Amino acid sequence: MNTAIIRFILGHVLKIEGLFLFLPAIVSGIYQEHEGFYFVGVASVSLLLGFIMTKKTPKSQVFYLKEGCIATSLSWILLSFFGCLPFYLSGEIPSFTDAMFETISGFTTTGATILSDVEGLSYCALFWRSFTHWIGGMGVLVFLLAVIPLSGGSHINLMRAESPGPSVGKLVPKIRYTAQILYLIYFVMTVLECILLLIGGMPLFDALTTSFGTAGTGGFGIKNDSFVSYSPYLQWVVTIFMMLFGINFNAYYLILFGTIKKALSIEEVRVYIGIIIAAVGVIFFNVLGTCGSIFETLTHSSFQVISIMTTTGFSSVDFNLWPQASKTILVLLMFIGACAGSTGGGIKVSRLIILFKTLFKELNSYIHPKIVKKIKMDGKPVEHDIMRSTNVYFITFMIIFTISVLAVSFEDKDLVTNFTAVIATLNNIGPGLELAGPTQNFGHFSIFSKYVLMFDMLAGRLELFPLLILFHPSAWKDFFTKRVSPK
Amino acid sequence: MNTAIIRFILGHVLKIEGLFLFLPAIVSGIYQEHEGFYFVGVASVSLLLGFIMTKKTPKSQVFYLKEGCIATSLSWILLSFFGCLPFYLSGEIPSFTDAMFETISGFTTTGATILSDVEGLSYCALFWRSFTHWIGGMGVLVFLLAVIPLSGGSHINLMRAESPGPSVGKLVPKIRYTAQILYLIYFVMTVLECILLLIGGMPLFDALTTSFGTAGTGGFGIKNDSFVSYSPYLQWVVTIFMMLFGINFNAYYLILFGTIKKALSIEEVRVYIGIIIAAVGVIFFNVLGTCGSIFETLTHSSFQVISIMTTTGFSSVDFNLWPQASKTILVLLMFIGACAGSTGGGIKVSRLIILFKTLFKELNSYIHPKIVKKIKMDGKPVEHDIMRSTNVYFITFMIIFTISVLAVSFEDKDLVTNFTAVIATLNNIGPGLELAGPTQNFGHFSIFSKYVLMFDMLAGRLELFPLLILFHPSAWKDFFTKRVSPK
Repeated sequence: MNTAIIRFILGHVLKIEGLFLFLPAIVSGIYQEHEGFYFVGVASVSLLLGFIMTKKTPKSQVFYLKEGCIATSLSWILLSFFGCLPFYLSGEIPSFTDAMFETISGFTTTGATILSDVEGLSYCALFWRSFTHWIGGMGVLVFLLAVIPLSGGSHINLMRAESPGPSVGKLVPKIRYTAQILYLIYFVMTVLECILLLIGGMPLFDALTTSFGTAGTGGFGIKNDSFVSYSPYLQWVVTIFMMLFGINFNAYYLILFGTIKKALSIEEVRVYIGIIIAAVGVIFFNVLGTCGSIFETLTHSSFQVISIMTTTGFSSVDFNLWPQASKTILVLLMFIGACAGSTGGGIKVSRLIILFKTLFKELNSYIHPKIVKKIKMDGKPVEHDIMRSTNVYFITFMIIFTISVLAVSFEDKDLVTNFTAVIATLNNIGPGLELAGPTQNFGHFSIFSKYVLMFDMLAGRLELFPLLILFHPSAWKDFFTKRVSPK
Repeated sequence: MNTAIIRFILGHVLKIEGLFLFLPAIVSGIYQEHEGFYFVGVASVSLLLGFIMTKKTPKSQVFYLKEGCIATSLSWILLSFFGCLPFYLSGEIPSFTDAMFETISGFTTTGATILSDVEGLSYCALFWRSFTHWIGGMGVLVFLLAVIPLSGGSHINLMRAESPGPSVGKLVPKIRYTAQILYLIYFVMTVLECILLLIGGMPLFDALTTSFGTAGTGGFGIKNDSFVSYSPYLQWVVTIFMMLFGINFNAYYLILFGTIKKALSIEEVRVYIGIIIAAVGVIFFNVLGTCGSIFETLTHSSFQVISIMTTTGFSSVDFNLWPQASKTILVLLMFIGACAGSTGGGIKVSRLIILFKTLFKELNSYIHPKIVKKIKMDGKPVEHDIMRSTNVYFITFMIIFTISVLAVSFEDKDLVTNFTAVIATLNNIGPGLELAGPTQNFGHFSIFSKYVLMFDMLAGRLELFPLLILFHPSAWKDFFTKRVSPK
């Protein structure tokens, strides 16, 4: 294994995090909070360590899928470890487990919090909390690829390990430009949302943190009641941007460099919008009469459907009090998630399409055993490898989900709490139902359960396999041999 | 499509059912119940119709997978329809929907009842209810294949559509002998259980119905409290026989004509026993102190684990009151189910093994991309087709499960009730949790929900696809053309 390149990548990640950590320090300067010192301190240590680790350029920059996965997983763990230190050292989150939970929840864009009183945090802590969503949304390694010229090597393996979805969309042949284009779209859309929120009368700090949370489809709010107390205009702006950030970014690339028609013809985007409309429709009629006026009902059902489906997790209402059918639909949306190639989590709409098409193909093979039709997406046949990996992903997802529910169940909380807490973390959503519901928090879980849920958050964000690789014994067998593994 | 052969098979099924319906009539004669007249009446009509439908032998006895599936699905629907008539006509179950639910639940060996007072039924009705389990356990078409010499045609397609598991085990080259051997083992084991129950002091009627329920892994009891009031000896006899009927019948064939060692070396059997031991172990410690003495705790945890895992559904205790971890384990066991080639339902242990092996194979491919290892079962490589169909089965299972939970949720019952009611019917178990728990019944569900759950029971028993085929438009396209479909 090429351990030098892993060290090198981790060093770069630490440098980037060090730089990012100065942002909350600036915020603390504006609000004159002493918590800023902890950010400066951790930022400095992070930078220093980063420089030491990247001082020696590795002889070979060649690395393969295994190294890509290990580098990605370790990056995210390291990122979360350093990211949680300011919370922990400043005493704002006194327990290390809780601080780590909160930070992993931030970077993985889950948005599940252990805090019962969010408003008690300092501004710089609130800023960092939301900013982790923004970093985690598009991915720190994608950022790395965009800013640092790495020569040689299969860098697609880094992107493959970090990007959501069954296949990695290389927008342009060069991976570096792809990463740059993605971050540019991401940045511009975040700014756009922020401006629209400011127009609606939201203070700058709120607008920034809300935009970070929306862009990364994260869900950390800065109010204890999430989005309940904001105006309908602000709720609708966030609704629309949540939906936009849940769309495959290929669509935006096509809008920029192609046509809108072409972008709207992407099958995944159409199914995604179709599911949203259907779910909003059913929930609207299901909660009608219990949620205020017709307009308010529409606002809340749209907000909640899109917030859950895009795995953002903001709440405009306590949907745990909704009727069962609506709650069941929300739970199903939790499983589906957003589009591949978006910042959202979940199983992903494109995987769902492939799974359904697999079912219909099987049915057809019973009727016409001799006619073998290939499954198509967007008019093109889906490669066998993507079919296979989609099936395997789904199987692995269900296995991890099941084992996690079992592990958490030893706390003797009710089944719905355990079930939805696991899906809300594994799919990076945030709130679940009952004791993990939108008006609750994850602070009451045991330390063991918290680590299970942390694992789930990371596994979900990294699309399962990169994290599982860390637990494979032979992944470490040649860690100390420093040999480059065979292609 | 060869409609003549479908008609011919359905006719035979009706004749067999007609004959079987005389058994409860005999019971009514012994207990001098007037309800027996309804059984005689329905039996006569069923026989008559059967004779009319089988009078003309079809010119071509050739049929393929499509015809096999349609014949199987229609057989089971017809079987349930005629089977429910005595309940309905006699007024013992006044609602047709309920009578149909109870009968489908019987034939599919689910054991979910709509009756709150089982003990109020006549003896002949109780007998028929339990006997449907026995017929459904091994399958009516397998019975047909065993007794009626059908020449030509791919009769394996009938067996394939009705037999549980990823692959059909042809014990001997001739399908007819395979069916006969299976029914012989089934019959002998049922008699054996009955004798052991009689030795334990159980009355003959109870011993017979209990044996039918155990053999088919059904779960209908003749007492309102299921198995709570029976002696530990009787509970243990039933526990052991439930476990035996959940084992792949290939194992018994190997014991008869091979060696016990060879039978015990079947991977699926070993994993099946391993899961049972692990689950009993965890639940034993989890419920210790709440379930009486250590012996009672062991009795109940063994009884309940094996009853749920084999999808029988008898209960010796109200496990809905158990701690969450135990309930969660039971829910997971509900999904797993028994061995393929047994009378039990569920996803099946062998499928689970294949799914786990698929996961490990994928992980290995990340570590060693160049080494492609085939997945093996019992030392032999698993054919690609079985791998594929296992994946598709799992996907389809989850899709049907999800849609059913959603459909049932409109009743506004709690999520755990809906969730476990669907899994308990789809996997032919019987009791779920909460309002579908062991001390409850399914009578309180709406008519719509009942039909959804009936669909699930049939889909689960027929391994999904044969029933789904009925809803495929092109399955019916050439129904009236009478042409034989191309191979």
